Amino acid sequence: MTRFALVVEFDGRPFMGWQRQAHGPSVQQVLEEAVQAVTGEETVVHAAGRTDAGVHALAMHAHVDVAKDIAPFRLGEALNARCRPHPIAVLDCRAVADDWHARFSCLGRSYEYRIVNRRAPLTVDKGLAWQVAQPLDTDAMHRAAQHLVGRHDFTTFRSAHCQAASPVKTLDRLDVGREGDRVFVRAAGRSFLHHQVRSMVGSLAQVGLGRWTPDDLADALAARDRQRLGLNAPPDGLFFVGAVY
Amino acid sequence: MTRFALVVEFDGRPFMGWQRQAHGPSVQQVLEEAVQAVTGEETVVHAAGRTDAGVHALAMHAHVDVAKDIAPFRLGEALNARCRPHPIAVLDCRAVADDWHARFSCLGRSYEYRIVNRRAPLTVDKGLAWQVAQPLDTDAMHRAAQHLVGRHDFTTFRSAHCQAASPVKTLDRLDVGREGDRVFVRAAGRSFLHHQVRSMVGSLAQVGLGRWTPDDLADALAARDRQRLGLNAPPDGLFFVGAVY
Repeated sequence: MTRFALVVEFDGRPFMGWQRQAHGPSVQQVLEEAVQAVTGEETVVHAAGRTDAGVHALAMHAHVDVAKDIAPFRLGEALNARCRPHPIAVLDCRAVADDWHARFSCLGRSYEYRIVNRRAPLTVDKGLAWQVAQPLDTDAMHRAAQHLVGRHDFTTFRSAHCQAASPVKTLDRLDVGREGDRVFVRAAGRSFLHHQVRSMVGSLAQVGLGRWTPDDLADALAARDRQRLGLNAPPDGLFFVGAVY
Repeated sequence: MTRFALVVEFDGRPFMGWQRQAHGPSVQQVLEEAVQAVTGEETVVHAAGRTDAGVHALAMHAHVDVAKDIAPFRLGEALNARCRPHPIAVLDCRAVADDWHARFSCLGRSYEYRIVNRRAPLTVDKGLAWQVAQPLDTDAMHRAAQHLVGRHDFTTFRSAHCQAASPVKTLDRLDVGREGDRVFVRAAGRSFLHHQVRSMVGSLAQVGLGRWTPDDLADALAARDRQRLGLNAPPDGLFFVGAVY
């Protein structure tokens, strides 16, 4: 048995999310079926993080155990051939130690959230960004974001379906920047609650639109109350961009 | 009658190209039908350049004459409402002088061609870039590209269907750069022949792959012979990005 670490890129639009679902296609299912087609083995592909329906990944990290004797390069190529025509690509495949775990060995995860800040609807970015028509004050958003950095109870920014044992997480970085009409929110931390990034981005947008002050965001965090959430940003703009081991 | 200048973004994938076609949808047709829905007027929307099927625009410039009394902002908003669900967006709409012409007043056009240089297939960029699996030497491509800059007979890089009166054009700029696995070719000039950018990119790729030297590209240009073309790059990676007046 060899454990292979995979770096996977996918377009989340056609999927119910990363995780296998009874009622629709998932990234995990396509990958597991690809592994079975290549090796004849029924396996589980474990990921660094689960993503929701419509959320994308530029570098999801995952692992799978394979009994068949196959070189990492060949496995990666074969998985790409078998994933077609689904928008899933294995960017890297390498053999790792048997105790390396994509989820449990992961020391840090990072996300990028993309906003297109303009009145006109999206064309080439449709499904790949959140269009916000009113002007966003990204300086205010960045200042407000710093209230969320650090170790906090993120109950306000947690989905009702979140299965994490504790709502306390440490957010290492939350930066907001702008390039023309493109606004980026970049988040990094050891782990995140369900919907945490989208919830934080939605509340930051309230600040950017002038509806909230940066202190309102700090108050919402301190309230530890899901009802105080500003808004849950749509999945379209969210990308899982990296994992640290 | 007021002449309105439009800046239009579109995703070229669902279209036969900019120009109206008998046998399929075009960007021009969608825009002209949108103008008619808003104003009740049958009009022609003129563009700075025609684009082929599958070619995109981030800032196509166009104009249209409207008799109805309507403010530019309202016209732009109404066109966006009427273009839905097609991936066409009016980014800017303003009144211009009656003798301003999107095509004939245009002093410069610029294109960007996007390549993703990796073995893995495309996911979020599918249809929006050209995937080249073998490593491209972008320094060699950039050096070779400088042979094409200037005033030349571009017959080698011209479609058999090109309707331009002369194959002699002045290319102001042709730059090749790389950011990670993303390769960009940026071209600017007063005007271009049909397929010129895609033909130049395809031949530059031959250089990048080591099949041609930069001098081979110069020889192909000097031959003024379509048979000497290296390759016509696919439309997917081509974006019309700007027009100067």
